[in-house]
Amino acid sequence: MDLSFATTTLRRLDELATVTDQPGTIHRTFLSPAMARANVMVGGWMKTLGGDVEIDGWGNLIGRFVGTDVDAPTLLLGSHLDTVPNAGKFDGPLGVLLALASLERLARLGIRLPFNIDVVGFSDEEGTRFHSAYLGSGALTGLLTEHDLNLRDVNGITVRETVAQFQGSSHVDLPAPRYAPERLLGYVEIHIEQGPVLEKLGLPLGVVDAIAAQTRLVYTVEGKAGHAGTTPMDLRRDALAGAAEMVLAVEQLGLHAPGLVATVGQLQVQPGASNVIPSAVRFSVDIRHPDRAIADQACAHLAATGDATAARRSLKIHHTLVQNTDGVVCSPRLVGRLAAVVEEQQSSVPHLISGAGHDGILLSRVTPTAMLFVRCRDGLSHHPEEHVDIADIDAAINALTHFLRNFS
Amino acid sequence: MDLSFATTTLRRLDELATVTDQPGTIHRTFLSPAMARANVMVGGWMKTLGGDVEIDGWGNLIGRFVGTDVDAPTLLLGSHLDTVPNAGKFDGPLGVLLALASLERLARLGIRLPFNIDVVGFSDEEGTRFHSAYLGSGALTGLLTEHDLNLRDVNGITVRETVAQFQGSSHVDLPAPRYAPERLLGYVEIHIEQGPVLEKLGLPLGVVDAIAAQTRLVYTVEGKAGHAGTTPMDLRRDALAGAAEMVLAVEQLGLHAPGLVATVGQLQVQPGASNVIPSAVRFSVDIRHPDRAIADQACAHLAATGDATAARRSLKIHHTLVQNTDGVVCSPRLVGRLAAVVEEQQSSVPHLISGAGHDGILLSRVTPTAMLFVRCRDGLSHHPEEHVDIADIDAAINALTHFLRNFS
Repeated sequence: MDLSFATTTLRRLDELATVTDQPGTIHRTFLSPAMARANVMVGGWMKTLGGDVEIDGWGNLIGRFVGTDVDAPTLLLGSHLDTVPNAGKFDGPLGVLLALASLERLARLGIRLPFNIDVVGFSDEEGTRFHSAYLGSGALTGLLTEHDLNLRDVNGITVRETVAQFQGSSHVDLPAPRYAPERLLGYVEIHIEQGPVLEKLGLPLGVVDAIAAQTRLVYTVEGKAGHAGTTPMDLRRDALAGAAEMVLAVEQLGLHAPGLVATVGQLQVQPGASNVIPSAVRFSVDIRHPDRAIADQACAHLAATGDATAARRSLKIHHTLVQNTDGVVCSPRLVGRLAAVVEEQQSSVPHLISGAGHDGILLSRVTPTAMLFVRCRDGLSHHPEEHVDIADIDAAINALTHFLRNFS
Repeated sequence: MDLSFATTTLRRLDELATVTDQPGTIHRTFLSPAMARANVMVGGWMKTLGGDVEIDGWGNLIGRFVGTDVDAPTLLLGSHLDTVPNAGKFDGPLGVLLALASLERLARLGIRLPFNIDVVGFSDEEGTRFHSAYLGSGALTGLLTEHDLNLRDVNGITVRETVAQFQGSSHVDLPAPRYAPERLLGYVEIHIEQGPVLEKLGLPLGVVDAIAAQTRLVYTVEGKAGHAGTTPMDLRRDALAGAAEMVLAVEQLGLHAPGLVATVGQLQVQPGASNVIPSAVRFSVDIRHPDRAIADQACAHLAATGDATAARRSLKIHHTLVQNTDGVVCSPRLVGRLAAVVEEQQSSVPHLISGAGHDGILLSRVTPTAMLFVRCRDGLSHHPEEHVDIADIDAAINALTHFLRNFS
């Protein structure tokens, strides 16, 4: 087994892991200084491989690799280069660097493909800053809306303002699609599984049949501030106590509907002093299920719980929808081709549903899309201990290389 | 009724309300830029009145008003100039400005007192930044300990570092008492009630017999981060869900023990991304009851709830004690003298227990201490809508002026 391409990939992952907005941890967000440096680093590796490199107006890194026919259509490969706070080094970058490793391997074999390949490092898959994902792939596909431009971060700064500063212009238009659909052959993304199934089966790779529907909400609870020492308990309208009930209600949603996951990941308290009864709380809710109808039902149930809590506690509880992504069924043709190459190298081919969202959700609306999952230790992701074995990285490079060789 | 002194006091309160670290709201914390400006503003009014003004090494503002005998002992008057976030304009400053108004009135009447008066604007009664109160009065009385110097703010900066920077020195010693106890006549503080009792009774003023015992704790909950889309509910160790149970348990403490108030005012979530299961939560707990034994019992009950929650959810839950203040019984002699002047001007004299802590807790350990409470609307404090009627301000100026005239 020649592990040199996997070794190079691991070394690059380690190097990229040093590029961060928060020293001591891995953290890169949409259009941040670290994202600019990451684009320069990965862009450098693309150039060494003979790619033409561009960073578009929304921070996406695009490396173009021309085949034997410069006028042929393009296959897109890639994943994202942004991360959650305190991230691991594989979630996102692995898919970009595996694409480069496969192209490098084809070049070493002297193989030139009859189509063009663009390797993309998307700029905003995690949505950490604006609490909405896919700004990068949304821009590339021309699927962004005014709603996206007007999203605000925790400091009240809009996407529009952030992008205007990045572009050095006073005005930001909704971006046009980068590609005419008829000029695209498809989009293939490799990603760590972020779940425990492949590890349980003892297999390095699995193909993704579908991506779960996902809903993100922001809830606000309004009560009334008061002195913590002198306001009797029965006269309080404590926003945090109401929010605590809601956090537990979100958890109950997930415990009662099989396959559904529901999470409160952010929660901010106003005014936030130890001796003041909280006047307002804002928290995020993330709900996912393969079946959109079940996710919608859970959202409705949560809203009803909010109304009841508000009435009982004399609070105001509101929510806004910030993302409501349909599930995606992957392209059966591409899934079949991926399954064929995986079958060549392991005893069976697991077919998986992705509980996590991916840029592929937006790409699937403009071109046939498929994903390959790589086994990760303990199913862990979004965590510094995220880990993929070098042998599994090699298996993914093999599979993608064979896929590209046979693709037409 | 001559309201000119009350009018001046209200005008000064409005002017002081513009001095803030957070434009649009009132917010002044220990040794902040706004506190420096507030000291200059109030110090200016003290100078106009003929006071010698000093700002000590811990940010306390002290205006010295010498009487007929420069060698006579000193009576301390005052309150604090720091505030909670998004504060009202009365809590703290009212007590400092009422002292100035009374001295102005005595001067107008041509009365010189046979003792000296120091009017103090304390620098840290709310304890917002370091989650522990009374750094200012602790410094003035020489009652601070190494523990206080080592407290850290949310950014990990210690009291010691903050004070060293303020003093422009590399080393901070525990401050010595400013006054020898035998040179002090007592400490009298006027403050808004921060509760509904005087309003219910329809009376402007009340005397304080005692201040409730107060315990402040910081709880930490540790779980494990994970991907919100792919980690099944039954395999989660969600720190925020555990913390939500604890927030409701704190509320239950207060609902079940009459007279006890219990509050979670601060809560921070790590890593704080909408699509990551929270790995850690830190929250404050504030518990008060006139009887220290009942407060201690509540703390023990909460700790047991924490242990049970940690075991059931596979979390780690710890707490540290950041403040545990005994209740204070006010000086019967000073309370009697205050009650006598209040009795002259209203139909009855309410005797109150303060649920809120005050700098008087520390002053009471070095000199006889008493407090006068002024009615406030809706019992509201720590809120921008905090309000005191001008007639009640006038009543307080009258009472304090008569108290000082008769004091010996």
